[in-house]
Amino acid sequence: MYDKCVKLLEERGVSLDDIVDLVLYLQGKYHPEILKDEILLSVQSVIAKREVQHAILTGLMIDKIAESEIDMDPQLRAILLADESLYGIDEVLAYGICNLYGSIALTNYGFIDREKPGILEKINQHGSQCNVFLDDIVGAIAASAASKIAHHHGK
Amino acid sequence: MYDKCVKLLEERGVSLDDIVDLVLYLQGKYHPEILKDEILLSVQSVIAKREVQHAILTGLMIDKIAESEIDMDPQLRAILLADESLYGIDEVLAYGICNLYGSIALTNYGFIDREKPGILEKINQHGSQCNVFLDDIVGAIAASAASKIAHHHGK
Amino acid sequence: MYDKCVKLLEERGVSLDDIVDLVLYLQGKYHPEILKDEILLSVQSVIAKREVQHAILTGLMIDKIAESEIDMDPQLRAILLADESLYGIDEVLAYGICNLYGSIALTNYGFIDREKPGILEKINQHGSQCNVFLDDIVGAIAASAASKIAHHHGK
Amino acid sequence: MYDKCVKLLEERGVSLDDIVDLVLYLQGKYHPEILKDEILLSVQSVIAKREVQHAILTGLMIDKIAESEIDMDPQLRAILLADESLYGIDEVLAYGICNLYGSIALTNYGFIDREKPGILEKINQHGSQCNVFLDDIVGAIAASAASKIAHHHGK
Repeated sequence: MYDKCVKLLEERGVSLDDIVDLVLYLQGKYHPEILKDEILLSVQSVIAKREVQHAILTGLMIDKIAESEIDMDPQLRAILLADESLYGIDEVLAYGICNLYGSIALTNYGFIDREKPGILEKINQHGSQCNVFLDDIVGAIAASAASKIAHHHGK
Repeated sequence: MYDKCVKLLEERGVSLDDIVDLVLYLQGKYHPEILKDEILLSVQSVIAKREVQHAILTGLMIDKIAESEIDMDPQLRAILLADESLYGIDEVLAYGICNLYGSIALTNYGFIDREKPGILEKINQHGSQCNVFLDDIVGAIAASAASKIAHHHGK
Repeated sequence: MYDKCVKLLEERGVSLDDIVDLVLYLQGKYHPEILKDEILLSVQSVIAKREVQHAILTGLMIDKIAESEIDMDPQLRAILLADESLYGIDEVLAYGICNLYGSIALTNYGFIDREKPGILEKINQHGSQCNVFLDDIVGAIAASAASKIAHHHGK
Repeated sequence: MYDKCVKLLEERGVSLDDIVDLVLYLQGKYHPEILKDEILLSVQSVIAKREVQHAILTGLMIDKIAESEIDMDPQLRAILLADESLYGIDEVLAYGICNLYGSIALTNYGFIDREKPGILEKINQHGSQCNVFLDDIVGAIAASAASKIAHHHGK
């Protein structure tokens, strides 16, 4: 399932390297000595978690259905295609990931979700692709990996 | 949107009356004097909330896609059709509802999710219908309405 | 810090064995083959987590201050000594623990918090000791250990 | 209880006006037309909520005990006086507030907790006063008020 999730993220436009860069954005200030290899291991361990894989599979399925011709509630489709900020189920899924990694993951996610650095900005200029869940899930994975590193290095 | 959500729940087999009965199951012990009409108002006010409506539309869409022929990840479909207990995205959505109503809603939901009284038991013997999200969303609405009543009546 | 937390729980009336029994109550039905030794390891690993230790130290400090003569807001003291059900900060701390162990931990906690089996019932008949935070923290540790076992054993 | 909470916040160095400014920082970009009076009403309605009042009373009590001579676990006191970033019970209490106001409140809180604008920066240069819980509670109240405004104004 791990390989499938990584491949799925890549198909939607996000590589593990992109996520590593987000973690660097979050933690680089506190831990300038950290190597990309260590961060990559942390990102991989987050994606290896069952709950995270379920969130990836479920969230990206919704994104793909919204952008397809598959029959769905027209109001929900309109909300998703417009990425309406009052729709919060994507954030709810993201918290489901962050919660597993403690309070530092949650504040990191809130921060990155407002700042939209790196790949998160690109994802938000997506043309016809629907990325409502993608950006929150990617942000949550990065925030969780950053929290792991903070706990390991003593913040 | 409210009417659509109520209709959608009914199409999937859950009436407002069923949810009222769940609230009675949760709060009747503490408030034997409460009238069904008051509980109904509380249930309706929960469903009137935007975040709750988004959870209903999104969760029930996933249930319907899983039971349809629409192309989706076969592993995710197998998990959903088997209602695997280690899949927790349905609970994550339910917490997204309960969190809005405070800690009493969360413990009520956890309790009802294990006990499966009334309509929740029926939903779980569903034949070919996929009710992975339905039962958690219904349980969360009932738990939230019960929490509202508890706060209002001082218990 | 681990040893201190275990000792603190014992001073307040809860042994590791009591928590093991709660986990058995939660998971015994699903995993009758599980040995107490395995459960004990799971409980110990939960208490070894930094966030859990912080919750224990902080929550039990509040209980002890409430029952002492130390100056505190009289309204808050009255709420704590009466263990008013609308006070939910104890549950908030408990969710802070359960969230780290996923959605199964949260539903288990909600269930156990309503049923109050074993040591949780004893804690609630405490005489002059204030156990507002103790019972929720103990329930959360048991629910988290049960969730670990469920994930490990595939249920 | 409302008046007591406002007074308590003021005694610790935070006025309602300071919180209004935090909300402006969070929402001003999206709603430049909003009047301070409307924001003030939103802040007041958050503080009028029972769960929020309990969080204020409990959190600020811990801050005050930490800075006092009252006997407490020396390790916990050291953590609090140093405002160690790996101590997350203050954030857990803040989430207990934000959760009541939906996902926008949570991301706003995460953002403000990293950026520390206005009064939050001042609180963090506190001299001998212990503000571990104060800054998170104030940030959570502001983030919740901002979420209310966002939902009301349609962003």
